[in-house]
Order: sequence, then structure tokens, then C-alpha cells
Amino acid sequence: MLDKLSWRYAVKKMDPSQCVPEEKVEKILEAIRYAPTSSGVQPFEVFVITNPELRDAIRAASYGQPQITEGSHLLVFAAWDNYTAERIDAVLAQNVAERGESETLAAYYERLKGMYLPRTEETNHDHAARQAYIAFGFALAAAAELEVDSTPMEGFEPEKVDAILGLREKGLRSVTLLPLGVRAAEGDWLQGMAKVRKPADELFTVLA
Amino acid sequence: MLDKLSWRYAVKKMDPSQCVPEEKVEKILEAIRYAPTSSGVQPFEVFVITNPELRDAIRAASYGQPQITEGSHLLVFAAWDNYTAERIDAVLAQNVAERGESETLAAYYERLKGMYLPRTEETNHDHAARQAYIAFGFALAAAAELEVDSTPMEGFEPEKVDAILGLREKGLRSVTLLPLGVRAAEGDWLQGMAKVRKPADELFTVLA
Repeated sequence: MLDKLSWRYAVKKMDPSQCVPEEKVEKILEAIRYAPTSSGVQPFEVFVITNPELRDAIRAASYGQPQITEGSHLLVFAAWDNYTAERIDAVLAQNVAERGESETLAAYYERLKGMYLPRTEETNHDHAARQAYIAFGFALAAAAELEVDSTPMEGFEPEKVDAILGLREKGLRSVTLLPLGVRAAEGDWLQGMAKVRKPADELFTVLA
Repeated sequence: MLDKLSWRYAVKKMDPSQCVPEEKVEKILEAIRYAPTSSGVQPFEVFVITNPELRDAIRAASYGQPQITEGSHLLVFAAWDNYTAERIDAVLAQNVAERGESETLAAYYERLKGMYLPRTEETNHDHAARQAYIAFGFALAAAAELEVDSTPMEGFEPEKVDAILGLREKGLRSVTLLPLGVRAAEGDWLQGMAKVRKPADELFTVLA
């Protein structure tokens, strides 16, 4: 992805006649699945939406941003609303199933429950959302590597998107959207504009 | 990075006699600098620490995790404590300097201030932290691509790390650590263990 950092940009207009190949979408999903998360909990789910009616509804809940329907796939990142004993126990159970019984592991996740469960739902959801953002970063990097266009979006009404997808009933809350598609050849005001990033000496401090 | 998703893991023991080449560290920093952020604000800074005393102190504030001093470089991701008019104005000023005057841009960032400035400091810091996590994801993906070992860490006492680096005075709060180094050949309990990730059908829902 390093040689594609300048190639990628937040596409404003996608070509609705073009489709991202399924094998590339699969690779982006694998990058999401392999993204590291705190204590390996992976406290989020991702909805992969091609359905036109659902995307129309989500576009309407996202200030009409056209990439949501002009791209070929829409990823909705939804973080857990809270940590629960059941959710943490399921992580431990999968670890035991794949790595074998371990007292150390069992004690680790017991401590994790002791830390997470007394916290407020908001604190836990926020922590889960941050993990989803790591995976969101992986998805963006993977898309760039594959020369798949994408537009990272926070500009939507989460309550409406949650309602459209029935997320709250599943213990989830939408945190970001990522339309995948093919940049339109014309009509994107951002395309071709200089990429603006802070200079390295503003962003980084070396302490040697 | 896609072919390195299984190669990377959260290294638990690094070889302190080995050093990540500076040109690879530079590439990881470029990936951080190019990571997308909400409205292009880049509301974070990254501290690149090789200084032994500082790393000793940060290790002591991080439950003694050895990678912090056994790696060759430690990245500390620090998000803005809050959004301010000055900070948003500086983003607009850089955009104008590099892309030229634009009423649309000026109006955009004016609206952004109208949205951000009335919010609580905690809400704004949390939003800034999420942007830092996208860059954190980019750093992890870039390190994997370059076969640089790394260990993503949230397990530290942020107030202590903030004090060690004088972050609060700079309007910053530490959110994650990322030691970079070379995995030790022996003595890492996690090395060689099966990578545990949820199956795709648990993590993804396709809505066609």
C-alpha cells in the first residue's frame, strides 16, 4: 500500500456503471478480519451492502452523499454497543478451541471482564469503536493496495443507519461508512487537486 | 500489506541488539502522514522515541512491557485534547496556501467550527482519538508491508505517559503506543501460536 498513498483519495464521484470485482472485496474483508484489536476481541461487525434499496435509504441518512449508491459496495462498520460477559467468554472459547485450554488465557479474559464490565456503556462502546477504526484503517490501506476506490465517511446520521439495518437490536452501533467503487472520469471536484497533509515536522517529534 | 497479514503479530519479545533501519521508519511515518482523517484535520501528533531514559520511564508507566525498550523505536500516538478555532483555522490556512483561496473551503471549515466548538472537550478528544486510530492502522499495515515488527499497545497509564512527554501542556493526550523492532528468535510465548480471528461469517453480513 505504500506506493499507493498518493493514488488514494476520498473519491467524491464514482462511476455507477463500474463494479469492484468480488475477489478484491474479499481481500479487503480479509484485511479487516486480520486487523489487530485490543486483547483480540474484534468488537465490531461489518455489513457489506450491494442491495439498492438499503443503499438508497442509507444515502438519504447520509446527507445524500452519492458515492453510497454510485459505488458498487457499501461497507458499514458497526461497533459493539457494550462489552458483556457473554461476548468476552465467546472470545475465550474460540481461543481455547483453536489454541487449547490455558489457565493463563482464562485468567486474562477474567481480568478483562473485571475491567470492562463495571464501566459505562458509553466508555465501552467508545473503546469498541476505536478498535473498529483500526480495522477501518486496514480496509482503506487494503483498498489502496488493490487500486479500489473508496470514500471514508463519518458524515451520516448513526441513529438512522442503525434503524435501517436493525443494528441496536443486534447490540451494534454504526460508526463509519466505506463505499467502494470506481472513480468517475469526470465531475469529481476533488480529483486532481493537490493532496494536503501537514508537513512531517508538524506531525512528528523525534526524541533521540 | 495483504500478503503480510499472517506474518504480522503483536510481538511479545523483541531482540534489543537489532534496529529497524531508519528508511523503514520514515516510510511508516509517511503512511501515518498520508492516512485520511475527518475533514482532513489530522488531529494528532506522533512522538518517535529512541531515547533510552524516556523509554525506560514509559515502560514503567506501561506495566513493564519489555517491547518498549527492547524495540529500537517507540511511536506514541497523541490525539488533540480538544478542537479549537485556532487549530481548525490552521487547517484552512494550509488548504488555502496549497490549493488557493476558496469560499467553499472557508465556509466548510466555518461550519466545522460551528459543529465542533460547542461540544464537550471529551467528545472532541474522543473524535480526535478515532482519527489517530486510522493512522495507527496505517502504521501497523505499513510496518507489516515492510516486515517491521511492531506491537500495538493500549495497556499503559495515559496520565503518566502524558506527564513524561509533557503532552497536556501541548494540548495532547496519549492514546496508543507502537514499539517497532525485530522479533526475538526465542522466548516469545505468542510466536508460532495459531492466529485467532473470528470466522468471516461471524464478522461480516452480506446484504445483497
